[in-house]
Amino acid sequence: MAQRATGSEIERLIQLLARLPGLGPRSARRAALHMIKNREKLLGPLASALTAAHDNVTVCSTCGNVDTSDPCAMCLDPRRDRTIICVVEEVGDLWALERSAAINCHYHVIGGTLSAIEGVRPEDLNISKLVERAAAPEVKEIVLAVNATVDGHTTAHYITERLKECDVSVSRLAHGVPVGGELDYLDEGTLIAAMKSRRPF
Amino acid sequence: MAQRATGSEIERLIQLLARLPGLGPRSARRAALHMIKNREKLLGPLASALTAAHDNVTVCSTCGNVDTSDPCAMCLDPRRDRTIICVVEEVGDLWALERSAAINCHYHVIGGTLSAIEGVRPEDLNISKLVERAAAPEVKEIVLAVNATVDGHTTAHYITERLKECDVSVSRLAHGVPVGGELDYLDEGTLIAAMKSRRPF
Repeated sequence: MAQRATGSEIERLIQLLARLPGLGPRSARRAALHMIKNREKLLGPLASALTAAHDNVTVCSTCGNVDTSDPCAMCLDPRRDRTIICVVEEVGDLWALERSAAINCHYHVIGGTLSAIEGVRPEDLNISKLVERAAAPEVKEIVLAVNATVDGHTTAHYITERLKECDVSVSRLAHGVPVGGELDYLDEGTLIAAMKSRRPF
Repeated sequence: MAQRATGSEIERLIQLLARLPGLGPRSARRAALHMIKNREKLLGPLASALTAAHDNVTVCSTCGNVDTSDPCAMCLDPRRDRTIICVVEEVGDLWALERSAAINCHYHVIGGTLSAIEGVRPEDLNISKLVERAAAPEVKEIVLAVNATVDGHTTAHYITERLKECDVSVSRLAHGVPVGGELDYLDEGTLIAAMKSRRPF
């Protein structure tokens, strides 16, 4: 019945929006209506932004980041510390670290984790390129900023093995109590890790 | 910092997505990444769909529905009952009624409710056009399918007054227990309305 009520172009827009993460059919309809109501301020600019993204966004062949140039702006940025490469699973993780401004270094997106269950093998990930980059004389440290999951750990171990041939130190993010976290709500693994890594106050 | 990590076009896309209802900054970033990762299947089609919507979608000057033509497909549909006009607040309400297939009639979107607090006056709503349509000889009934809120009731009363000059009967949606609803969870107003309108079983 919805097809009778709405133009097929609106219907198609809703169907596509519903495929975005976090949007279901209902919120996709709300979003579509909101855009149509804000034609000049939202619908037009969003149409242009999506077209621009579609036409210009590419994956950096050096680090795996997405950007409008290849190599990406981060790989070309001379203000970044070239001695450190921070390894992340996904581009979203890279963005999260950049927002935190935790480190001013270069990145390498491997594109996931090794997974026996999902059949992800080392050659499916962007690891060989990392080994190649790590072999450069200026690189001194590889920070493994993978997720603290079983697959993340497995992947970190595998990468460490692969990097043995390079003259780099390999580090990983510290485990511990999240800032603002309450002990009562934390899992045992985190508490054990935080206790093991306790530091002088 | 995020601007350093992401191309300005990706950043702009995220900012626009974050203005959609139901999406915040975090989910906008996830949605943007999801689109970029699914360039051919999602990003491209969505860019085209938004451009098409921007170029073609318009508000029907008869009923206030949004469609790619004016008058809209619903106003032109000869299979719809021309004797009934169903009045709704917003286009989303029209879509909801169409999905339910509760009635096969013509619609009229008034674009909101009267509101003293928000300063919405009768002339801000699409009511004069409704009175004009209701005066047509073929129209026999106006169904007020406004929301069951205080402002909705006020608006319904006002519209009823305005329609006194026309030769139409005015009805409103029934109040009662929602299908599947449990009495224990319903408010008193709904229970009182449902009891008052009780029907032989």
